[in-house]
Amino acid sequence: MAVFTRVSEADIAAWLSNYSLGTLIELQGIPAGIENTNYFVTTSNGRFVLTLFEKLTSDDLPFFLNLMAHLARHGIPCPCPVADKQNHFLGKLNDKPACIVSRLSGKSVTQPNTAQCAAVGAMLGQMHSAGQSFGDQMLNPRGSSWRAEAANKVKRFLPAQDAALLESEVALHAANPLNGLPRGIIHADLFRDNVLMDGEHVGGLIDFYFACTGNLLYDVAITVNDWCMTPEGKLDATHTRAMLNAYHAARPFTAREAEAWPMALRVAALRFWISRLYDLYLPREGEMVHPHNPEQFKRILQNHIATPQPAWL
Amino acid sequence: MAVFTRVSEADIAAWLSNYSLGTLIELQGIPAGIENTNYFVTTSNGRFVLTLFEKLTSDDLPFFLNLMAHLARHGIPCPCPVADKQNHFLGKLNDKPACIVSRLSGKSVTQPNTAQCAAVGAMLGQMHSAGQSFGDQMLNPRGSSWRAEAANKVKRFLPAQDAALLESEVALHAANPLNGLPRGIIHADLFRDNVLMDGEHVGGLIDFYFACTGNLLYDVAITVNDWCMTPEGKLDATHTRAMLNAYHAARPFTAREAEAWPMALRVAALRFWISRLYDLYLPREGEMVHPHNPEQFKRILQNHIATPQPAWL
Repeated sequence: MAVFTRVSEADIAAWLSNYSLGTLIELQGIPAGIENTNYFVTTSNGRFVLTLFEKLTSDDLPFFLNLMAHLARHGIPCPCPVADKQNHFLGKLNDKPACIVSRLSGKSVTQPNTAQCAAVGAMLGQMHSAGQSFGDQMLNPRGSSWRAEAANKVKRFLPAQDAALLESEVALHAANPLNGLPRGIIHADLFRDNVLMDGEHVGGLIDFYFACTGNLLYDVAITVNDWCMTPEGKLDATHTRAMLNAYHAARPFTAREAEAWPMALRVAALRFWISRLYDLYLPREGEMVHPHNPEQFKRILQNHIATPQPAWL
Repeated sequence: MAVFTRVSEADIAAWLSNYSLGTLIELQGIPAGIENTNYFVTTSNGRFVLTLFEKLTSDDLPFFLNLMAHLARHGIPCPCPVADKQNHFLGKLNDKPACIVSRLSGKSVTQPNTAQCAAVGAMLGQMHSAGQSFGDQMLNPRGSSWRAEAANKVKRFLPAQDAALLESEVALHAANPLNGLPRGIIHADLFRDNVLMDGEHVGGLIDFYFACTGNLLYDVAITVNDWCMTPEGKLDATHTRAMLNAYHAARPFTAREAEAWPMALRVAALRFWISRLYDLYLPREGEMVHPHNPEQFKRILQNHIATPQPAWL
C-alpha cells in the first residue's frame, strides 16, 4: 500500500484552488509505488496524478520535475508536471512536498513480447535524444562510491563465495569506469513496472526519481537486464536484439559503446544486486514493502560474467 | 481545403529527424482551417498536428507558441508545441515557418447542449486563470483602431441604414472603451469550431492565433455570442445561464464587469460583423474559402442593442 499520507477530498479541493484545473471529480489512492504517496485525481480538465513526496526534499525535486517537463516538451510520453497559479510545479500538501502531473494511458506488462521490447528500446533512444538539450545535471546517487559503501555494509550477511563475487565486481568496476562514452540524462530505473504499455505502443515512461546524468549505455543495460531477461537470468536473444535494434535506430551505439556493452550489463546487474541486498538486510525504518529477492540479480551478474553478450550492432 | 503547402512523407520524415518523436507512421492532410496548412502526423511516440504558417511570420509566432505551451503547462487542454533537438518550438518546412503540436481528442459540435455550454464556460474561466501568469503581451489586432479602419473601408458596400448602424456602433465603442476591467490573455475566437468536445467534456481549445491581451469579459462575450446563440440571433437563456454560471464558478465577474456585460456583447458582435463584411467585400487575393455571411452578426448586434442582456450573476 503506497498511500503513506492520507489526502481527503477537502484537502485536494482546497489545494486545487491554486491551480487552473477545474473542479474535483474523483480522488483515488494508488496502491503501487514504494517511495511516494500517489493518488489519481480526476478534475473537470482531465486526468492527473497527485504525488506527495515522502523522502525526496524540496531541494532535490526541481531537477526531477523540470526534467519531466523538458521531456514532455519534446514529445516523450512521461508525466508532465502541472504548474500552479504562481507558475510553480512544486507545492506543499499535508506538510509534504507535492505536485500534480498528467496521467498517461496504458499499464505495465510483466511478460513483454518482442514488439513491446522494440517499442521500449526506441522510446529509450528518443528519451536519450530529448535529454541532450536538458541543462541541469544530477550525480548518479547509485554510482561507484555508493556501490563500494553499500557492498561493504551488506557483505557480512552473505556466504563467503557471494561476498567474494561482490567485492571483486565492485573493485573491477571502480578500477575500470566506463569513461569516454556518450553521456546525458538517464532514467536509471526503466524496469517493466516503470513503463505503461498501450498494446504494443509505449503509453508512458514513469517514475523518474532515480534519473541522473550518466552513460547512456548504462541506461540501456539496466533496461535490457529487466525487459529481456528469462526467469533463469539469461538474456532472451530475440527480445534483446529487438530492443537494441530499435534503440540503435533512434541512437546508434558508438564503436566504443559496442565494445563496452558486456561490462555495462555487468555493472547494471551489480547495481541492482547491491540495492536489493541492502533493502533485504538493512531495510530503512518503517519500510512498508516486501523487498525484491536479490538472487535474481546475482544470477544475472554471474551469467553476464560467464557469457559476455553481443551488442547486436 | 486547407493544405496550401504540400508536405510529402519524405519531407516530414527528414524534418522529424530533428525531433525526438520517433518514426513516421502516418501523414494526413486536414481540410479544415483557413489560415494555415495542417497535417495530422502519427509517429511512434503518438499523435501530433503539423502546422505550416501561411501568413503569420516568425516574428509573431513565438507569442502564440509560448502561450500554448504555458497554458498546457497549467493543465489547460490545448495544443502543446513540441520542441526540437535544439529546444526550439518553431522550425521551417518547405520554406514556411512550421511547428508540430500535440493532437487533442474530441471534435467540434455545431449544436451544443446545456452541459457542453457549461463545460466551455468553465474551461474559458480556467484558461483566463492560467493566463494570468503568462508574461508576454500582444495588442489586440482586431481592436478599436482596426474596427474604425475596416468599417470605413466596407461601409460603401452597405445599404445606408446598415452603414449608419456600423458607424454609430464603431463611434460608440471608441468613445466608451471598456476600461478598468480585469485583463489578461484572451483567446478572442473561441467559436464552436475552435473547441474539441469529448462528449460533455472539453477535449481541447484550439486555434490560438487570434489570442492577445485584452478584457477577459470581451472573451466571454465572443464565446457566448457564438455558443449560446439561436438561429434568430438571440441568446438562448438556458445555454447562456449555464455558460456564465460555470464561468463565474471559475472566475466570478466583478460588479463592474456585470454592469459592462451588455456593451461587451455588443462590441464582440460588432467585431465579427466587421470582419465578415471585410472578408465578403474585400477578400484577400488567393483567398480560398467561402466567407461567412455577415448578416448573422448584424442581427445579433441589433438584438443586443434592442434587448440588453443580463450577466446572470
